Amino acid sequence: MDASALPSPISPDSGNLKERIYARVRPDLARIENEINCLLNSDIPLISVVGRYIMGSGGKRLRPLLMLLAARICGYRGDEDARLAVVFEFVHAASLLHDDVVDESSLRRGLASANAVWGNKASVLVGDFLFSRAFELMVEDGSIQVLAILSRASSVIAEGEVLQLITANDTSTSEDSYLEVIRAKTAALFAAACRIGAVVADRPKIEEEALESYGLNLGIAFQLINAVLDYSAKQAVLGKTVGDDFREGKITLPVVLAFRRGNDSERKFWVRALERGEIGDSDLDHAIGLMTKHRALEDTINRAQHYGAMAVDALALFPSSPMKSALEQVVAFCLARSH
Amino acid sequence: MDASALPSPISPDSGNLKERIYARVRPDLARIENEINCLLNSDIPLISVVGRYIMGSGGKRLRPLLMLLAARICGYRGDEDARLAVVFEFVHAASLLHDDVVDESSLRRGLASANAVWGNKASVLVGDFLFSRAFELMVEDGSIQVLAILSRASSVIAEGEVLQLITANDTSTSEDSYLEVIRAKTAALFAAACRIGAVVADRPKIEEEALESYGLNLGIAFQLINAVLDYSAKQAVLGKTVGDDFREGKITLPVVLAFRRGNDSERKFWVRALERGEIGDSDLDHAIGLMTKHRALEDTINRAQHYGAMAVDALALFPSSPMKSALEQVVAFCLARSH
Repeated sequence: MDASALPSPISPDSGNLKERIYARVRPDLARIENEINCLLNSDIPLISVVGRYIMGSGGKRLRPLLMLLAARICGYRGDEDARLAVVFEFVHAASLLHDDVVDESSLRRGLASANAVWGNKASVLVGDFLFSRAFELMVEDGSIQVLAILSRASSVIAEGEVLQLITANDTSTSEDSYLEVIRAKTAALFAAACRIGAVVADRPKIEEEALESYGLNLGIAFQLINAVLDYSAKQAVLGKTVGDDFREGKITLPVVLAFRRGNDSERKFWVRALERGEIGDSDLDHAIGLMTKHRALEDTINRAQHYGAMAVDALALFPSSPMKSALEQVVAFCLARSH
Repeated sequence: MDASALPSPISPDSGNLKERIYARVRPDLARIENEINCLLNSDIPLISVVGRYIMGSGGKRLRPLLMLLAARICGYRGDEDARLAVVFEFVHAASLLHDDVVDESSLRRGLASANAVWGNKASVLVGDFLFSRAFELMVEDGSIQVLAILSRASSVIAEGEVLQLITANDTSTSEDSYLEVIRAKTAALFAAACRIGAVVADRPKIEEEALESYGLNLGIAFQLINAVLDYSAKQAVLGKTVGDDFREGKITLPVVLAFRRGNDSERKFWVRALERGEIGDSDLDHAIGLMTKHRALEDTINRAQHYGAMAVDALALFPSSPMKSALEQVVAFCLARSH
């Protein structure tokens, strides 16, 4: 598939697109919400409160959605998969809680982050709890194959987080190193959710691998668009402060490209701002100006469209179906997300 | 078994006792050290370094030891269990890393804590990695029964950690609430290690449950003695600063007993020191003085001996054997640990 055939991130109808995708599996998503709600009941009120906060605050349930759609493109017709799909939202929520502690973030999706409200300690420990519950849910499901895929993904995610910690603030990070981080940190869970969809449907390995590839490439595209949004979205739209990554000294692809394409004085600017953390009032605007000058945001979107196209191509072996369209639309939605 | 038959914590020969216990499974422990070392190899140096630091710094490998001894009292004669035993050390190390972040500790076993050396971020993330690897190891082992026991224990541990966070600094904590915390936070992993020993040996449920009960009661006794040590051990012996719990406002059984047995002015002292954190130079000595006056340390040891006796009694259904003696000696060693 030609990348240019994908909707550009400026597409105005991503709201409708989202509605159409979610409509395909609405009863299952309702079941997932219900399961999440039940599973967050705890004798320890702080667990319920923090858990509901992190899992209720406007999440797209993208990872469970992917597992459901993947199972259905493989012909699965049961309703036993909703409970397993919850696992991905729990693992994701656990990593959000720990991420916010590590990044010292005070906002998430426009609301105060959990660590800002309940402190780092509660975030670390409730994250541990959600992660443990996720494993318990998988064990209840009883498939060693599912457990193998997700426990491997969890290790890869944790490695990715550590790798990101090491490369944080290093302006000399290469595009490849950056991709290695987001592949591990974000795309591995997307890939696992999609692959497990095929496992649930008991499909041959070639379909498992196709869906894993779909999820991996989608995850990379998703994270690249996240990086662009941090320098371009309006806070009200994304529920995030523009420039969070910049203020935290996070090296994302727009920075990598602007740094590499810049001259000496521009590089000195990036080093001062991102490595030494010396950031003045006008520096974010200056950074965005340099990115515009070097087409860094535009090219990051181009890269995202490349991975989006790979994701769509990975589905080629599946015959046309409403579920295949839905998975293609997820790619379009992720690319179009900012508008 | 009568509690008074157990060695008192003042027993001078705990070093020899330890040697005798470990001698029973020395080849397996060597295999465990080797496995830990291999498993900590990572392409990401920070993971290897922090992992080796937390797992190499004088740990007793008590949880793997318990699993090995439990498997052997059940007649297991293979050598396949060493790799699974490593899981318990990984889960334990992960919780140590997160604990030190939550407690803001700067020392562990006489060395700088990992968070003091590499920061909270690395401790949170390497903890997540070790926890994920533990699950991967279990999945490789392939037993759903093992996975069910340990994933349940992990959730209970996380709940215990959150519960401790809530009751921290609350001098009105009851003895029962305190016991609930240590049962979840510490004893659940001991219980899981012992129960899984029986599962590995493929023994009937009654033996699983006996070993679980042994582990649970041993874990409670172990943690009670820890609480006593914090007010009595010399730093050089334990590799810990005396009074860490006091300075962190941790409510342990010696505090619960001294608070409840104290008069109004003593209670005001505990509230000021532990709830408001207003601690002067002589306050630790004063706290120890109050504990002595109310026999709070002595009675905490008595309580520990009670749980130790229950642990030993839980083994009654096993015939006499060197492995049974070893498990009994572990109880004696835990109680005698401070000397």
